[in-house]
Amino acid sequence: MAKKKNGGKVLKIIPLGGLGQIGMNITAFEYGNSIVVVDCGLAFPEDDMLGIDLVIPDITYLMDNADKVEGFVITHGHEDHIGALPYVLKQLNVPVYATKLTTALIEGKLKEHGISEIVSKRVVSAGETITLGAFKVEFIRTNHSIADACALAITSPVGTVVHTGDFKVDYTPVFGDAIDLQRFAELGRKGVLALMCDSTNAERPGFTNSEKTVGKTIDALFSEHEDSRIIVSTFASNVDRVQQIINAAYRHNRKVVVEGRSMVNIIQTATELGYIDVHENTLIDIEDLKNYPDRKTVIITTGSQGETMAALNRIANSTHKLLQIKPGDTVIFSSNPIPGNEKAVARLINELSMKGADVVFQDAHVSGHACQEEIKLIYTLVKPQYAIPVHGEYKHLKAQAAIARELGIAKENIILTSVGKVIAINKKGVRITEEVQTGAVFVDGLGVGDVGNVVIRDRQALAEDGILMAVMTLERGTNTVVAGPDIVTRGFIYVKESDDIMEEARDVVLTAIDKIQVRNITDWGKMKSIIKDALSSYVWKKMKRRPMIMPIIMEIDN
Amino acid sequence: MAKKKNGGKVLKIIPLGGLGQIGMNITAFEYGNSIVVVDCGLAFPEDDMLGIDLVIPDITYLMDNADKVEGFVITHGHEDHIGALPYVLKQLNVPVYATKLTTALIEGKLKEHGISEIVSKRVVSAGETITLGAFKVEFIRTNHSIADACALAITSPVGTVVHTGDFKVDYTPVFGDAIDLQRFAELGRKGVLALMCDSTNAERPGFTNSEKTVGKTIDALFSEHEDSRIIVSTFASNVDRVQQIINAAYRHNRKVVVEGRSMVNIIQTATELGYIDVHENTLIDIEDLKNYPDRKTVIITTGSQGETMAALNRIANSTHKLLQIKPGDTVIFSSNPIPGNEKAVARLINELSMKGADVVFQDAHVSGHACQEEIKLIYTLVKPQYAIPVHGEYKHLKAQAAIARELGIAKENIILTSVGKVIAINKKGVRITEEVQTGAVFVDGLGVGDVGNVVIRDRQALAEDGILMAVMTLERGTNTVVAGPDIVTRGFIYVKESDDIMEEARDVVLTAIDKIQVRNITDWGKMKSIIKDALSSYVWKKMKRRPMIMPIIMEIDN
Repeated sequence: MAKKKNGGKVLKIIPLGGLGQIGMNITAFEYGNSIVVVDCGLAFPEDDMLGIDLVIPDITYLMDNADKVEGFVITHGHEDHIGALPYVLKQLNVPVYATKLTTALIEGKLKEHGISEIVSKRVVSAGETITLGAFKVEFIRTNHSIADACALAITSPVGTVVHTGDFKVDYTPVFGDAIDLQRFAELGRKGVLALMCDSTNAERPGFTNSEKTVGKTIDALFSEHEDSRIIVSTFASNVDRVQQIINAAYRHNRKVVVEGRSMVNIIQTATELGYIDVHENTLIDIEDLKNYPDRKTVIITTGSQGETMAALNRIANSTHKLLQIKPGDTVIFSSNPIPGNEKAVARLINELSMKGADVVFQDAHVSGHACQEEIKLIYTLVKPQYAIPVHGEYKHLKAQAAIARELGIAKENIILTSVGKVIAINKKGVRITEEVQTGAVFVDGLGVGDVGNVVIRDRQALAEDGILMAVMTLERGTNTVVAGPDIVTRGFIYVKESDDIMEEARDVVLTAIDKIQVRNITDWGKMKSIIKDALSSYVWKKMKRRPMIMPIIMEIDN
Repeated sequence: MAKKKNGGKVLKIIPLGGLGQIGMNITAFEYGNSIVVVDCGLAFPEDDMLGIDLVIPDITYLMDNADKVEGFVITHGHEDHIGALPYVLKQLNVPVYATKLTTALIEGKLKEHGISEIVSKRVVSAGETITLGAFKVEFIRTNHSIADACALAITSPVGTVVHTGDFKVDYTPVFGDAIDLQRFAELGRKGVLALMCDSTNAERPGFTNSEKTVGKTIDALFSEHEDSRIIVSTFASNVDRVQQIINAAYRHNRKVVVEGRSMVNIIQTATELGYIDVHENTLIDIEDLKNYPDRKTVIITTGSQGETMAALNRIANSTHKLLQIKPGDTVIFSSNPIPGNEKAVARLINELSMKGADVVFQDAHVSGHACQEEIKLIYTLVKPQYAIPVHGEYKHLKAQAAIARELGIAKENIILTSVGKVIAINKKGVRITEEVQTGAVFVDGLGVGDVGNVVIRDRQALAEDGILMAVMTLERGTNTVVAGPDIVTRGFIYVKESDDIMEEARDVVLTAIDKIQVRNITDWGKMKSIIKDALSSYVWKKMKRRPMIMPIIMEIDN
């Protein structure tokens, strides 16, 4: 163990999720008997995780060290950083530390899960430092596509690690102040052991534009389309974006409807906490839209990623109760498609265009993540001894590693690692000492973890070619067929037009039973596998398909 | 009917596929008793078409008018223009007219399907005109990402329609001549009734770069990476691209291995026909790679779209028999991700990076489709009376419509329409007169059309939450349970850890059977639906899931 080797004076950094993958961000910091956990996010299921609603990290390592865990410190309120909290806190009830808006968003989730009362939350302000066991954790203001985002300076007896969280440098943010670059500089001057910096945009040169530039674009688009109703679609959690759209509407004398459950919720929370400031009489109820001419209205809506159930998709498909596209509507996408959603977004745009809408899909969005020049700025201020690129796929981490090298950090001081590997670090060196259990836990309906790889593989097989069942009742001992065999299929073939195949399959089973009787086989496993093999081979030869094949045998006494 | 109204003097243009969708290009031209069909492509299945291998157009309309169909005229040899031919020709055996390379590629498909002998093929050269019933069809040389592409000038008694096929304007093509712009101009001077022009890139401003620019980029990349093995991945059918990679390899004294079945096939065909010219001793067998230093080799491979089974993916995942990534390899993607493949491509790049490869993903590709300035050029040469944008999603068609309007074509002379709608056209006007049957026919294994929407819906349901079967044998008349009920599930839950649920589900079924007995219900449909409803409601309450629920009842006599 690393500890013994140098007298216990190492900090362990243990990524339990989110490294080399999108989403599910969670990282444990361990020193002696203290563990602090940064973030606790969910991931959305990959295409092959059939039927799964969401994915949360396996926290076996934290459960095995439950008495050491001092709490969760949260960088910001996006799902990939807070979404697994309600599930995880049910198993491991420790305090949660976060800024005001982030705490309110977490609170909403805990209430939905009925555990708000039993979880201890503590609101922390940017600039504040909290003590958690052997650690001091300082929250440092950053900018991102959600308000109240913070980086963390995590100080242990062997040194300070700066974790940026998701961030960008916005000198002219819409709400609140610019990222606290001075504090990054001060920390750097004092000496920083390691920097864990957001890699999401590390492949992109230059600087990410200020959120304010989007406000100007939206204003210009409103001027350009002053004769039509305007629908703007964006991310529910981007409160500053919504603020700017509302401001533009106000300037252009338009009333605003906010539509989509998640957006309504977040805007309500943000309004209550003072993160958004709406001019009086600007927001109206969706039912009151009819009282205003189209050219005097704006609808802000969720669904910019083409999500099937989101408001914009329902509006486009005419399945929304109160809204539908009219020819001449202007629809502005204030978003970019997240990788994987390109096709769904294109489908939505086609649908909107076919209904006669003028779709605007450019320039009305900026990223929330730092590009290369911002990453260089942070490295140059923080001057870390070690670089541990975080947040992003492997290619992003690698792109940040290239930047770090360019800035003079030695290759051996740049740690490109993966989930579960324990980074043991102090001023004298860094090593990967061991690997702990990590993984993805599937949430499906109310079930957490009851659907695993076996079930998923079955779903994949069922999805591919369906299922073919051969059901029969046999007499115990003699294996005489008392009822059946019946061939029943689902998802395999259109049965009404396939009498021949059903009949042939039945004959295949009868032949297999003959074989079983002749050989006097009574072991169920063997009987089933003889029937299964016979059917598989028949179906493959006949149609080159591989449905799941299930012989179901009932036995009765004579 | 349109015919009667103006004495039969209309041309009907009937898009049977490919309009407002990607792939499955097929368009019928009908005049009097003659039908000519342009292209006959397949589409790749959408994400929700579970288990489907490929999709071909419903040709009911052609079958209903089989005696009129003079033949297929094919613009070029891409799958979305020729891929459905072997399936369709089995039903409707008419002659196929295409250029040399295109014919050879079709021939390969017909051989695989064992119908080469019975189909009549006729090789047509660019510049040649063939007569098909009431039509004259002239093949006009264009440029595209496959050699031997042609536009078609289809002349009927009411006028000439120019159909561009997929095209770009390449003044300096790698093989053969530039697009025959003079002929487009001549036709335009004589008068063209309608232009059906490729819309794929109609949203993109400017000009598509010449294929030759890619050669220069590849040459530069070879110079930059002269110390490492180079793997270049591109589209199998882009013979000119492969030619340029081979040329670069020759100039840099490297030996070339071509890997991936489809690429090997096409290169072989192209070499035989003289469409590719390989310097002696440049190509080597994959087994001989070991005889050359890495820096003296190039591997050209399929799989640039991240396809699971393609060579590059197998190389990246170490499942390729003869090749694997070594640290220091350079992998060049000479391609862009086709919409929908972005995530698969990113996954592949991550995998390659993790294995230590240097991945180059930029500038080593040009599109095969015309951008806005090229579209304007064709319109300006052809000066059509009517514009019928083709090839692309609705948003692309709409973008081309905007270009046509900009060039002075009246709004009512621009036809934005969709699959199945019959465009009846002559010099006096254009109307949508009727709608014919069209659709997607699913190919799954050897089955063509035996998997329809019902089966797909079942597969979707099975994929979502699996299947739960309740199997029992009852005594006829009394409904006394003789065997079971057994609960069997697949893709639903991890059974070994769910004894309680299985036991409770069994009780639910027993209770339902009690009810059936008490009420003396003997109708099987009713019995099944009582059991099904009871189980559905139990599972939903317990876990918020909706597996497919199947009661299976066997009946025996006392």
